[in-house]
Amino acid sequence: MQKLRSIVWERPFAKIIDQTKLPNELEFKYLRSLEDYEEAIVQMRVRGAPLIGVTAAYGMATVAIEAAERQDIDFKDAISVAAERLKKTRPTAINLFKAIDRVISAIQEAETPGEAARLAEAEAKRIDREEVEMCEAMAANGLKVLKDRMRVLTICNTGFLATSGIGTALGVIYRGFEAGKIDFVYACETRPVLQGARLTMWELLQAGIPSALITDNTAGLLMAKGLVDGVFVGADRIAANGDTANKIGTLTLAVLAKHFGIPFYVVAPSSSIDPSIPDGNSIPIEERPPDEVLDIRGCRIAPRGANALNFAFDVTPSELITGIITERGIIQPNEISRLF
Amino acid sequence: MQKLRSIVWERPFAKIIDQTKLPNELEFKYLRSLEDYEEAIVQMRVRGAPLIGVTAAYGMATVAIEAAERQDIDFKDAISVAAERLKKTRPTAINLFKAIDRVISAIQEAETPGEAARLAEAEAKRIDREEVEMCEAMAANGLKVLKDRMRVLTICNTGFLATSGIGTALGVIYRGFEAGKIDFVYACETRPVLQGARLTMWELLQAGIPSALITDNTAGLLMAKGLVDGVFVGADRIAANGDTANKIGTLTLAVLAKHFGIPFYVVAPSSSIDPSIPDGNSIPIEERPPDEVLDIRGCRIAPRGANALNFAFDVTPSELITGIITERGIIQPNEISRLF
Repeated sequence: MQKLRSIVWERPFAKIIDQTKLPNELEFKYLRSLEDYEEAIVQMRVRGAPLIGVTAAYGMATVAIEAAERQDIDFKDAISVAAERLKKTRPTAINLFKAIDRVISAIQEAETPGEAARLAEAEAKRIDREEVEMCEAMAANGLKVLKDRMRVLTICNTGFLATSGIGTALGVIYRGFEAGKIDFVYACETRPVLQGARLTMWELLQAGIPSALITDNTAGLLMAKGLVDGVFVGADRIAANGDTANKIGTLTLAVLAKHFGIPFYVVAPSSSIDPSIPDGNSIPIEERPPDEVLDIRGCRIAPRGANALNFAFDVTPSELITGIITERGIIQPNEISRLF
Repeated sequence: MQKLRSIVWERPFAKIIDQTKLPNELEFKYLRSLEDYEEAIVQMRVRGAPLIGVTAAYGMATVAIEAAERQDIDFKDAISVAAERLKKTRPTAINLFKAIDRVISAIQEAETPGEAARLAEAEAKRIDREEVEMCEAMAANGLKVLKDRMRVLTICNTGFLATSGIGTALGVIYRGFEAGKIDFVYACETRPVLQGARLTMWELLQAGIPSALITDNTAGLLMAKGLVDGVFVGADRIAANGDTANKIGTLTLAVLAKHFGIPFYVVAPSSSIDPSIPDGNSIPIEERPPDEVLDIRGCRIAPRGANALNFAFDVTPSELITGIITERGIIQPNEISRLF
């Protein structure tokens, strides 16, 4: 597992694990053009807020390198088109926008397209490396809130498939398991796209962490039975007041955790905080195609003519969050505005 | 829709809609032997607490009629074997046990196997007819708690496919829609067996009731957005203190409804109440095969070697229930012990 990475830069392209093929096939895919990057993000071949950011940054680098080499392309145009189109791929995770803006900032001073391309590539690699380091720092901070022999519950995938490092919430779980603090993981399957069933279970099996897959609607029963000692989730965007957008179903887990008196932690790099957004109501929530709900992996589960809603995220209000575990330390949700 | 019935008695057999084939195919199946009845209940070709009871009663009648006609079968043995085996098919719904016991009671006074068989058949038909009447009475009582233009949320299938009448929770929704009290229905897909997606959406489409399918983990978001005015669910067994076992996920909806201040109603015939069970902790919760979670309609969603938990039901504590809508009126959960 440690050798596999969700994304690898092979200049001038990025090579990704095509996550739509997991867990049945481990298939790699080269992203060779702006269209490849867009498609990979929209179709969720790469997903997870941090990884979306890293992928978009490499997309900017790929475009910059090609534009610098070709005479028939206007460099500045190519960069601004790439930024605009990549920003339209998915609306909720802040990482996408921040990564693209960082690459653009990095090339402002360049005097030639060639220099700009080198700077773009360097900045993308820096974002990638920073994510790796932040994952380790988050995991180290996460260890501080763990008690002994915990049975924890998580949703979606927040591991090495969601980042370029060991992960956010799942990173804490990896290091917590190694430290003997975590005994067992319940993975919510995470309908509709089943990142928990397909990706988190795949990671947990490879890491040898005892685990069970559950349907999303089983979390309440497990908590009522006293089988869950903590909930750890990721974040796609955190507002200034601590309200947190994350995978659909996270809000439900937070309400359940509050009801049953179970600690509920968000694990995210501080770059997931968007101080420009006052509260959760202003975070844009992506609505995806109804077919993701009506079909499961190509099998139709609802009658012809059925209508479906497919919100990809929900917002957990800050008062339901025990703490936000970042690379800079553990933050109380209501402290954010003081820190930024 | 009104002409279709989930089960029809065609002496000496019952003809059911094979619900495992819905929504893709509307296929009927004759139950001609004890094995057929057992298999149909275990494999969930028929499901829904009231319908399981009616099916088991007809199973007793089919066995009694055959045993009465054949010289090579000991009638009493055949009846007690049938009762014992049918009671083992599923553990949670009380209706199964009550229906079988009623048929056995009804034939106690018979002087010949032929008379006993006639009495068994008559009792099974009476149970069936009573369910039809109770559904209408529950729906009439349910109307009393409805406000105007409600958008309601439900889980699993509690309609005509779950009963021999118009249904329990979905029966209230049918009559509420006709009365102009209900505008819209959100149907939770109800993993793992997807009764909401496959069966409830099929019923709602046939009835022309505006509706949307949602993944189970979307309920929290809809409630947070103020889009849900009431939650209506069925019951598999209600303990003396009002704790209610129902489809896995019901507890989560009840906790969410409490958190967001939304009325949460259980709709069930009073026969679902089991006064011999003091509270929810004593209700047996069926654990079904992990493959129902690991595979969706034949498609594997988790990696090889993954472990899964598959509890079919959970228990909602009485304090989370706004009211229990029965054929005898609307009961406060804490009043049950006074009434029985």
